[in-house]
Amino acid sequence: MRIVHFEHGGRQLFGSRTPEGLRTFQGPASVSWDVLARALASREPLPVTGPVIPDGEARVLPPVPRPGKIVCIGLNYADHAREGGHPLPTYPAVFLRTATSITGHGQPLVCPPVSQQFDYEAELALVVGRRAHRVRAGDALSCVAGYTCFNDGSLRDYQRKSGQWTMGKNFDRSGALGPDLVTPDELPEGVGDLRITARLNGRTLQDGRTRDMIFSVPELIEIVSEVMTLEPGDVIATGTPAGVGFARTPPAFMAPGDVCEIEIEGIGVLRNVVASEEAAAPRQLKSKEAMQ
Amino acid sequence: MRIVHFEHGGRQLFGSRTPEGLRTFQGPASVSWDVLARALASREPLPVTGPVIPDGEARVLPPVPRPGKIVCIGLNYADHAREGGHPLPTYPAVFLRTATSITGHGQPLVCPPVSQQFDYEAELALVVGRRAHRVRAGDALSCVAGYTCFNDGSLRDYQRKSGQWTMGKNFDRSGALGPDLVTPDELPEGVGDLRITARLNGRTLQDGRTRDMIFSVPELIEIVSEVMTLEPGDVIATGTPAGVGFARTPPAFMAPGDVCEIEIEGIGVLRNVVASEEAAAPRQLKSKEAMQ
Repeated sequence: MRIVHFEHGGRQLFGSRTPEGLRTFQGPASVSWDVLARALASREPLPVTGPVIPDGEARVLPPVPRPGKIVCIGLNYADHAREGGHPLPTYPAVFLRTATSITGHGQPLVCPPVSQQFDYEAELALVVGRRAHRVRAGDALSCVAGYTCFNDGSLRDYQRKSGQWTMGKNFDRSGALGPDLVTPDELPEGVGDLRITARLNGRTLQDGRTRDMIFSVPELIEIVSEVMTLEPGDVIATGTPAGVGFARTPPAFMAPGDVCEIEIEGIGVLRNVVASEEAAAPRQLKSKEAMQ
Repeated sequence: MRIVHFEHGGRQLFGSRTPEGLRTFQGPASVSWDVLARALASREPLPVTGPVIPDGEARVLPPVPRPGKIVCIGLNYADHAREGGHPLPTYPAVFLRTATSITGHGQPLVCPPVSQQFDYEAELALVVGRRAHRVRAGDALSCVAGYTCFNDGSLRDYQRKSGQWTMGKNFDRSGALGPDLVTPDELPEGVGDLRITARLNGRTLQDGRTRDMIFSVPELIEIVSEVMTLEPGDVIATGTPAGVGFARTPPAFMAPGDVCEIEIEGIGVLRNVVASEEAAAPRQLKSKEAMQ
């Protein structure tokens, strides 16, 4: 099943992508993420019997509303570690992103005015479906609710202002997640060999395969869950292959007006137009929170 | 005012610390964090007219229920940067902690079985009271709901497994926040010069003053809010002075049974007993989430 989280008529809903449109889940009210996660984790069938919303009427949101944590893995493809001048890791380089740093498919990817080095990173992300602590790799896939595409948008100058990458990885709406959460039964076991690409204005700049990950999806779940309890809705982003903007000659950074697409075989295409903070602001200013 | 978040009779409540006990806020139901944050941010008086709960009957919780983000500043005291062999930063080293890595005052600080290098770090933390983006230092203090103590508990071997410190800083319940959220009117402007200490089993191991921060509280708010929108309930931990366990001869790491106290002048004492994961587990296993 391909699950979509979207806004329609002022409501935030979950539905299943069908040829006719987004078929909403039928529940007592609208199905919440908690209910959905529990059903996904137990591999229960989901009641997709609600009304169908035509694709064009829905605004796609990130698959998880405000993940509790977004755990990102750096340097997980040998060719990308090499292009950045890093030795191959024997333990993953892990950093976190905040929910404020993420936007959804079709929404502007925001280029802040303070940096000229806005870079894309195509990544496979998994969404956790059930609590997990100290899970062995052999059991790890049972924790996965589904997979989606991730653009780990990075402001390279801010990433390098200190030894910690956090600031360059956490500008507001500089990353994107989506569009669909694809359940594991739709994909090869462990998503071990999927093609993953990034395109900027139609030009393919990253073109890798998930089999080239240094730490596989099950290994990453074991490593991360040794340290922190994973909870439903948590996201693990599994790293990016070679071809990022800063490592190219000449560099290929993103600028307002550019279109960036992350495509993963069998999962989908995450497409965002890059916008300046000013151009992207009006929508946000309408939100209730901005009035506080 | 000194605000306490606590559990009593199976309910999570906010109250004001008084000589008689914890006086709860009177509201339509129990006052939520959102309502409280809005009142604090607008410096409105809070309706502390509810029942008084005796101190001994309450289990203190972290002042904010599940912060949206916990932004931690590394190397913000010159003497601590030096003891770790780091040059003085010209831009702060920033990392994030997850909500799962934090516990409250009086709860066990959990020592994981996989590491023997569990270290304390005494820090002043601020809690954000209103949304803030690109705030100048001169206006920054108006965003602060209050201040509290923070123990940035760190597993040093995991912190150094890669160049990113995230893993060593995010073991479950390895850090602590609290006990009280102290509103700015109770403290000197900008908390510029408060004594901050850490004690392990009664022995003072860190003894610093907040005036020795390289980046002051207003400067940190400016720097962090340039990158990410701060939201009510977000936490910024402002770094630790010299005297941490790994830099001592011999090293002074924490082990099960130890008592660690973080004290900040005018704010309070955050006290935790260190426990093995096994000893600390039973309480967690009773929680609803563990059954999922």
